[in-house]
Amino acid sequence: MTESELIARIKERAAGDPSLIIGIGDDAAVIRPAAGMDLVATTDTLVEGVHFDSRFTPADIGHLALASNLSDLAAMGAEPRWVLLSLILPEGDASWVEGFLDGFLPLAAGHRVVLAGGNLARGPLNVTVQALGEAVPGKAATRRGALPGDLLAITGTIGDAAAALALGEDAAEALKLRLTRPVPRVAAGRALAGRAHAMTDLSDGLLADLAKLVHPSCGARVELSALPASATISDAVARTDDRWKLQLGGGSDYELLAALPPECERDLDALARTSGVALTAIGAVEDGGEIRCVTPDGGEWQQPVGAWEHFSAR
Amino acid sequence: MTESELIARIKERAAGDPSLIIGIGDDAAVIRPAAGMDLVATTDTLVEGVHFDSRFTPADIGHLALASNLSDLAAMGAEPRWVLLSLILPEGDASWVEGFLDGFLPLAAGHRVVLAGGNLARGPLNVTVQALGEAVPGKAATRRGALPGDLLAITGTIGDAAAALALGEDAAEALKLRLTRPVPRVAAGRALAGRAHAMTDLSDGLLADLAKLVHPSCGARVELSALPASATISDAVARTDDRWKLQLGGGSDYELLAALPPECERDLDALARTSGVALTAIGAVEDGGEIRCVTPDGGEWQQPVGAWEHFSAR
Repeated sequence: MTESELIARIKERAAGDPSLIIGIGDDAAVIRPAAGMDLVATTDTLVEGVHFDSRFTPADIGHLALASNLSDLAAMGAEPRWVLLSLILPEGDASWVEGFLDGFLPLAAGHRVVLAGGNLARGPLNVTVQALGEAVPGKAATRRGALPGDLLAITGTIGDAAAALALGEDAAEALKLRLTRPVPRVAAGRALAGRAHAMTDLSDGLLADLAKLVHPSCGARVELSALPASATISDAVARTDDRWKLQLGGGSDYELLAALPPECERDLDALARTSGVALTAIGAVEDGGEIRCVTPDGGEWQQPVGAWEHFSAR
Repeated sequence: MTESELIARIKERAAGDPSLIIGIGDDAAVIRPAAGMDLVATTDTLVEGVHFDSRFTPADIGHLALASNLSDLAAMGAEPRWVLLSLILPEGDASWVEGFLDGFLPLAAGHRVVLAGGNLARGPLNVTVQALGEAVPGKAATRRGALPGDLLAITGTIGDAAAALALGEDAAEALKLRLTRPVPRVAAGRALAGRAHAMTDLSDGLLADLAKLVHPSCGARVELSALPASATISDAVARTDDRWKLQLGGGSDYELLAALPPECERDLDALARTSGVALTAIGAVEDGGEIRCVTPDGGEWQQPVGAWEHFSAR
């Protein structure tokens, strides 16, 4: 298909919205934001061979490209509203684009997110999404503001995506789905933003993302026995040490990590109900710059843990 | 450099702004838009080997990536305000990033555009910019609305970028600069938006972009003798026919094309002064679906003209 035909097809499948004054097909989109709200803006690019590989279907890529951006908005406690999509394709492959939309559009519809515009060009396969959300002024959560004594809580379970990568073809379907179809924790982000001193999503690995949340002013204690694990990873990874490594170092779970005032501990169940996902206390923010992982017997865990870093020497 | 070091360096060089509540370095940016304005949003990706090649310095790529997005906002008559930047780099090359910013940031500063956030990852070199602007509700120009009898006017001169591509290494420096350092017509876009029935920027070639402006409801007449040409292209391309081909088919000039009510003809000079760039009437919108190019002797020009189309069979 030609560029214009592909754009026409995307426009046909994308939903409209009263806030979208000019949508797909013009030089730019015109959006009417709600009065008095701040805009929350993020962008994420998925590159073939880096962020996804041949085990990802076009629909998986469509889902993941949007999910990773919605997760960034969730981490700020924002309500996702509009997205732009830039697709770079090796050729004008209509069935690839249809497949991509099969993953992208249902996730967008589920969050009432509107595809407002974008760009198509030829080149090595990659996908960039820009997501725009809204937040009440002054209410967006950030990575700054964690205080010593704060409770550290995470949504859902962690380690499944890393286990899927580590186990490859042998991984159980439930683990693979955590890698290819992560669930952005949008409702949890909005529920937690009103309470959290600081928040981020877990895309690079718990220890790496925790460091961004507490450093340089604080450190943290992580109780390894408290790390929430799915039944699937507990079945698939027999040794506790191996599971901890995946949970601490593996990225791509897209759960949220929040630093909450200690008195929130009694509210975790209520917050979880509002969020539609479990919330687990895993430790606390501490004075000093260290991040300590504490074993069930009270000792300190010293094993090296990798973390995702583009351009590192690994 | 690592990802975090590169992000820190970009943050250090980017300017702040009172509208930027949370900038580079968090999960997303928080922006405070002006009350009562519509948002105008666009995105454009530049791919190595497609949109630029080895004759482009990193600073050229930085300039071009922003200019092509600002040109889209100009075509809507919007005021550019904020940008997000997604850089995909083969390696963490700090000097490439510094060079890129040397082209990107001065253009941003010249339009008081704020770099609000973005994304870095490893992969085949490409650059995606998302630009956000503001427009008074109902006042954004679109590609729809041209009427038979409308005057067609373009800013500046056209054909230089295509001539630079056609002539390659032999092209004069002034032609190469039109390719590598196009000037987005932001002031002209804002001046014309209040008057234009329809507007677009010339990125795919005059005939291709004109078709998007008038089809399917109208056609157009283009007076070849009226096409504004720089002194440099007139020197470099001796045969008038060859020059017309470059002017009609060549993209990447990033001038604006507007369909204006016929009575605007007498205001073109005043509009040009507000715009800071020449405005030239080149023809008119007509009934019927045809686009006719008229030679100085009143005949019709019938030569084939290429136009940029991703995924075409060329």
